[in-house]
Amino acid sequence: MSVVQTVKILGLGAVALTLSVEWLGWLLRRIWPHGLRNRGPLKEVFFFPTEVACTEHVFHPDSPFPCPCPLPHGVETSFSRLLGHIMSASSSLDLCVFAFTNASLSRAVLALHARGVAVRILTDMDYTLITGSQIGAVRRAGICVRCDSGAVHMHHKFAVVDGRRLITGSLNWTLTAIQSNKENVLVTDEPDLVRPFIAEFQRLWAVNAPLRRPPSPVAEKPASLAV
Amino acid sequence: MSVVQTVKILGLGAVALTLSVEWLGWLLRRIWPHGLRNRGPLKEVFFFPTEVACTEHVFHPDSPFPCPCPLPHGVETSFSRLLGHIMSASSSLDLCVFAFTNASLSRAVLALHARGVAVRILTDMDYTLITGSQIGAVRRAGICVRCDSGAVHMHHKFAVVDGRRLITGSLNWTLTAIQSNKENVLVTDEPDLVRPFIAEFQRLWAVNAPLRRPPSPVAEKPASLAV
Repeated sequence: MSVVQTVKILGLGAVALTLSVEWLGWLLRRIWPHGLRNRGPLKEVFFFPTEVACTEHVFHPDSPFPCPCPLPHGVETSFSRLLGHIMSASSSLDLCVFAFTNASLSRAVLALHARGVAVRILTDMDYTLITGSQIGAVRRAGICVRCDSGAVHMHHKFAVVDGRRLITGSLNWTLTAIQSNKENVLVTDEPDLVRPFIAEFQRLWAVNAPLRRPPSPVAEKPASLAV
Repeated sequence: MSVVQTVKILGLGAVALTLSVEWLGWLLRRIWPHGLRNRGPLKEVFFFPTEVACTEHVFHPDSPFPCPCPLPHGVETSFSRLLGHIMSASSSLDLCVFAFTNASLSRAVLALHARGVAVRILTDMDYTLITGSQIGAVRRAGICVRCDSGAVHMHHKFAVVDGRRLITGSLNWTLTAIQSNKENVLVTDEPDLVRPFIAEFQRLWAVNAPLRRPPSPVAEKPASLAV
């Protein structure tokens, strides 16, 4: 085979291969648009109130024993999905939440801390004092907590998991919010949405460092309703 | 020029062109990753409390007269951005908000209604009674309002503009939230995030249709704090 023929065959072969790949991609996009689109960053939304169901499988996914509690089992609820995203943390959890009284969410945070995940909690100073607040329990376990006292209310309800997954919405970490209120939670890995929340957490964490706080911050805050 | 030569030149030309386009794309992605990424759906996050500044330009963008008010002018704040997104509505605004007392946000909603935008408001029954509630004013203007009485609190704070832009976060539509609290607002056109909120609004709107409500719904709700 001459050099000219070899070049010709190679050239045409390359054209055929490249165009086939392009056409295959176009064809797949036409046939399966949602499948291809879903390969982007995680984007998930769920609503509350949630159905009450057992969530032991989130805490012990590998347990060989079935849970004996009387709640329904094997049901995926908004709450089990929320817990699952929190428990997926492998290196860090930065939590910025107005009210934190839910015992299951506190258990999740304590479990992460026990397995070496760096947990930081930023909360509203006034709301650490409400009935059932979990702030004392997480502090006693050695988790670093800072309280915001500079605003009327630190009304955020977001968490950043492993510096790359955002959990945000209207939901405070309370039993009323989860089982009784109409609430929303949005979970995403989209960097353009996660990045500003990371920056805001870092800013608020630094602003509320213990040495920077005034001696009696509670007195500065009006006891207004957080709406 | 022989047929063989023509085929050879065309083949090599096609290879060169296709590979050049591929390589150019790869090179642009390496040089300008953010630029290319930002061409997707809108993804915006802003935080409160906001700086107090004049927002007349949002209501009257084409006015030839400067605003005479004593507030700072020409300052883009979180609040002016929020107002801008709301005022961008051209066909519909579906608002689902726990507390609505802010006069500027009420003015925006009334302006949209006056220019023919279909506005629907879903709010918490108890919180229509708080001091400064704007629900009476928007109702009197003819805007359709439905009150949720089925949950302890309808605690959502989201809006959908023109069925394609989601505004959500921790922020109630109150002056305290905007000027005093630490709050977040997330705005996106990402269909995977907007779609569930549209569905939830439609569901809640249907559930809270006047004829479906029990006669004395307020009595069903405990007067607990919405956390």
